[in-house]
Amino acid sequence: MTARTGRRPGGADTRAQIVAAARTAFAQSGYDGTSLRGVARAAGVDPALVHRFFGGKAALFGAAMDLPADPGVLVRRLLADGLDGIGVRVVRTFVGVWDSQPGQERLVALLRGGVASAESADLLRGFLVEAVLGPLATATGRPDGALRASLAASQLVGLAVARYVLRLEPLAGADPDQLAREVGPTLQRYLNG
Amino acid sequence: MTARTGRRPGGADTRAQIVAAARTAFAQSGYDGTSLRGVARAAGVDPALVHRFFGGKAALFGAAMDLPADPGVLVRRLLADGLDGIGVRVVRTFVGVWDSQPGQERLVALLRGGVASAESADLLRGFLVEAVLGPLATATGRPDGALRASLAASQLVGLAVARYVLRLEPLAGADPDQLAREVGPTLQRYLNG
Repeated sequence: MTARTGRRPGGADTRAQIVAAARTAFAQSGYDGTSLRGVARAAGVDPALVHRFFGGKAALFGAAMDLPADPGVLVRRLLADGLDGIGVRVVRTFVGVWDSQPGQERLVALLRGGVASAESADLLRGFLVEAVLGPLATATGRPDGALRASLAASQLVGLAVARYVLRLEPLAGADPDQLAREVGPTLQRYLNG
Repeated sequence: MTARTGRRPGGADTRAQIVAAARTAFAQSGYDGTSLRGVARAAGVDPALVHRFFGGKAALFGAAMDLPADPGVLVRRLLADGLDGIGVRVVRTFVGVWDSQPGQERLVALLRGGVASAESADLLRGFLVEAVLGPLATATGRPDGALRASLAASQLVGLAVARYVLRLEPLAGADPDQLAREVGPTLQRYLNG
């Protein structure tokens, strides 16, 4: 008997196979060291299929980490409406995704991992830079856009740690509308101040 | 032969003994479940001696975690000059302490621990509330002071995670003066906006 080899056709099993291969690749090679082509090879599928299923590395990472939403898609959607009122919209979207279950558990796991060790920090940083900070930096249209984006990320990461991990009250129990009112202007100033 | 018993006199050894007992107590009973009296009993010293060495539970926790500075002392010093310009002064002080070595390593370890599990999150939260958030909330002189303080904490925790753990550039390499200019107004608005 010979093992089945060759490229598998598209389908739910194939998608699961790609996601499993991606999870291994990200864990072993980090974010920057993982390529769609390498994941396709490991999963035994055509690279075009990985592109068709996931579009890009950030979305593949999101699927591998079982994230409740693709940050890249959310960021593009937020930026489609321009920088006017972006601060409040970012906070609303961010809190909406993080408040949801079981999404929150997965996001907390990702954050815990990213803080736990230098390797997993590299992984999370690579993903954040490609999916979130890069597009935000470009959208500011400013020469210091990368700094603006990293400042915004610092407030969002801190909001996540304070509200969902350390559970600092009354922030942890605050209404999303109130958070948007309080934290929105911070993001607005960082991105477009 | 009988073991030496009874209360030890003050001195460097006694201080180390108290700190070791405190480390065990905080790890076993959490922040709220640890008392100076209990630590004194475990260390075999008079409670008055623990008070004399450390002043209070927050300072004892800082010593047990080998922190480079006592946040309670820093907060009192910052608040002594009133709320005028408090945002920039808080960021300057915060970044100054975190930028220093070997302080940074110990603070990153504390942060990593606080994010790693629910028990250590409880420990870090208990400490932050007593040493930092409580005094800040009171200093705002506002009925929503606790919310103001927790918002400020979210930006500071996020700054620490982004700069020292995830090392998001260009934030990670930014000049402390620039950080004070950019992040100071956020703290100012949260605490006194």
